Amino acid sequence: MGIVVQKYGGSSVSDAASIKRVAQRIVATKKAGHDVVVVVSAMGDTTDELLDLAHDVSPLPDGRELDMLLTAGERISMALLAMAIGNLGQQAQSFTGSQAGVITDSEHGKAKIIDVSPGRITKAVGEGAVAIVAGFQGVSQDSKDITTLGRGGSDTTAVALAAALEADVCEIYTDVDGIFTADPRIVPTARRIPVISYEETLEMAANGAKILHLRCVEYARRNNMPIHVRSSFSSKVGTWVVSAERMSEILNEGDGEAPVMEQAIISGVAHDRSEAKITVVGVPDKVGEAARIFETLADAQINLDMIVQNVSAAATGLTDISFTLPRADGQTAMTTLARLKDEVGYAQLQYDDGVGKISLVGAGMRTNPGISAKFFKAIADAGVNIEMISTSEIRISVVVNEQQIDDAVSAAHRAFDLDSDEVEAVVYGGSGR
Amino acid sequence: MGIVVQKYGGSSVSDAASIKRVAQRIVATKKAGHDVVVVVSAMGDTTDELLDLAHDVSPLPDGRELDMLLTAGERISMALLAMAIGNLGQQAQSFTGSQAGVITDSEHGKAKIIDVSPGRITKAVGEGAVAIVAGFQGVSQDSKDITTLGRGGSDTTAVALAAALEADVCEIYTDVDGIFTADPRIVPTARRIPVISYEETLEMAANGAKILHLRCVEYARRNNMPIHVRSSFSSKVGTWVVSAERMSEILNEGDGEAPVMEQAIISGVAHDRSEAKITVVGVPDKVGEAARIFETLADAQINLDMIVQNVSAAATGLTDISFTLPRADGQTAMTTLARLKDEVGYAQLQYDDGVGKISLVGAGMRTNPGISAKFFKAIADAGVNIEMISTSEIRISVVVNEQQIDDAVSAAHRAFDLDSDEVEAVVYGGSGR
Repeated sequence: MGIVVQKYGGSSVSDAASIKRVAQRIVATKKAGHDVVVVVSAMGDTTDELLDLAHDVSPLPDGRELDMLLTAGERISMALLAMAIGNLGQQAQSFTGSQAGVITDSEHGKAKIIDVSPGRITKAVGEGAVAIVAGFQGVSQDSKDITTLGRGGSDTTAVALAAALEADVCEIYTDVDGIFTADPRIVPTARRIPVISYEETLEMAANGAKILHLRCVEYARRNNMPIHVRSSFSSKVGTWVVSAERMSEILNEGDGEAPVMEQAIISGVAHDRSEAKITVVGVPDKVGEAARIFETLADAQINLDMIVQNVSAAATGLTDISFTLPRADGQTAMTTLARLKDEVGYAQLQYDDGVGKISLVGAGMRTNPGISAKFFKAIADAGVNIEMISTSEIRISVVVNEQQIDDAVSAAHRAFDLDSDEVEAVVYGGSGR
Repeated sequence: MGIVVQKYGGSSVSDAASIKRVAQRIVATKKAGHDVVVVVSAMGDTTDELLDLAHDVSPLPDGRELDMLLTAGERISMALLAMAIGNLGQQAQSFTGSQAGVITDSEHGKAKIIDVSPGRITKAVGEGAVAIVAGFQGVSQDSKDITTLGRGGSDTTAVALAAALEADVCEIYTDVDGIFTADPRIVPTARRIPVISYEETLEMAANGAKILHLRCVEYARRNNMPIHVRSSFSSKVGTWVVSAERMSEILNEGDGEAPVMEQAIISGVAHDRSEAKITVVGVPDKVGEAARIFETLADAQINLDMIVQNVSAAATGLTDISFTLPRADGQTAMTTLARLKDEVGYAQLQYDDGVGKISLVGAGMRTNPGISAKFFKAIADAGVNIEMISTSEIRISVVVNEQQIDDAVSAAHRAFDLDSDEVEAVVYGGSGR
């Protein structure tokens, strides 16, 4: 059998007991005949503790040094995991991102993987050892400095390694049983999605679902690497994230006549509480004014999400432009826009961080008309006002008042028959870094 | 001006406040015109905490993985120190042992430095940065695995780097003002030794003085690298450890006529509570029997210190052999010897861990007869019985009852006029790793 890459997040290795538990699962996989490569995050709150220390010594710590500091976290967890595996009689060796050949650019704190040259991993695995690799970290191509990959970095490390090693599967272990049709904390009857395409997962991730990070899914899609998201607390099958083609194959497996499983029109309902809305009121409706605003924001490295421009009032020749953006960028965006006031000549700026976004995601949208209408009606029936709308081929998103997110999510979930007969999910949380 | 290498132990960087304090001292040295390379240990108790974690997951952790784990400690302290220096407006970069070019053999947990290729350090310093290097760690020449140097490792890193960089001096910062004529906890009137030779320091270190580790001093002697042992809590001059030639020069500096300072006949009194004594009673006094015993112990990797063989009783043809060894090796030695009983035919084994060793160290012994007699008399006058004696050219050691170590040290210190008029030392402790 081939190579299995397993990734364990911080909550799966939060203390000695959980490290020993994870070690047993790894050894079981190895004994089942697989070659196993493990990617591990820092233990529990280690990263936050290290960040606190950094801010105790410097209000604005240097990026290179911050990466050097934070990578100590995975160094600790990976060495402990290797020891725990060794204690079960199975050979194991730990490797830093640099040793594992994870080559990145030099953007400290959010480096991108340029290449993976896992020669030492292949060697260790070839000698019968389990290789444990530090997630979230790499080494820069130019300066040979230690880098970190930013949020979702360990998942990305796992998928990148799996692709480089031509693994059969990349298993992402988390504290839930897979990807659900909605956040079970909001919709207790949310169902586990057995299989979902990369494209749908990307839309879910980009629109607030926290199980898999965008970059990791993008990497998997580019390399056609199957991801199996599952719980480290059970042995249940979780959610398979695969290509649309492979998804059809899986759904049609069985006796070859009827599909084993109907492909759902809608995969799930994602929500996002991390955005804010800015409205630029009274912009002169001339060619280039809107472009000037968005150019300036782009120069300030601010990523906009949804953008709506009202039809201008003929009488005044003025229009309003609204857009959403990460709340973390709100202050910078407002300052940047304030400096444009005289140049653009708008009337005023409005900032609203009391908004939330609901997204309906499903590949079936392409071939099923009327999905939007049904979605908007479900939300309206729940008494929720829609402030903005944006769509892609397989997603519809609406911005609503933050207080009404839960109602809107539940209503949409019910309207598209996503509710399970029983409550499946027990725990729910982010997958850490 | 040239390069100054400074080493700060764990107690000097135990928390954010002390890291900031050390950063200020480093920046001051840099501002005084020196190029500065800093070697740093792990913060306070970090190493012990990591060891505890290791033993929580495995009773006998793998050496390679233990080294991987422990090196996280310096990674944290060095990154924080670099940030703290950066916060004072001075550029600083941290480097792991591997990045600093500390090449070792593959003996995990007690690796030896084979070579130091500090290209990246030279480059960083050349660009005006302070280079912060992780002490205690390196990378193995053969397998490129992370190694640790064992006890005293950070001091050794500092001296090795200083030698490779052809630094002017290697400053070892600790929590006392230098090397003292005796442990100030026992002899409150002990004096700081202003200058001492490598040879004397080696004898002090080998015989229980805990300020500098043997390997570090050996490395300095081999490379003729001056060490300045001083306190990180004051700016006082500490103890200079230099070659005998340089020592004479320093003592004779001034107007060139009379020496500025008289070279002391005796440098200090060291003591050691870490040894045990084993006596093999009734060994047949035949050629080869003693050799057989010592060969077997050597094969078991046990380092003996002092050895005494009694004159055999003519009537019986039997003799007793006593030796001292580290208490940590006591159990292994007794088991090893027990297996030899039939072969060698000795009568019995005696184990005594209630012993201690007092050593008088001084280069002046060579040219001053009567030192031994005066030493033994002082100890006898203090009512202390001498159990064993061993000497080198510049040292006399005696084994006494552990309970009487303090009395013996004080008596010897007084007899050789080492007492200061006032109490100088305030704090005292080991220099960490």
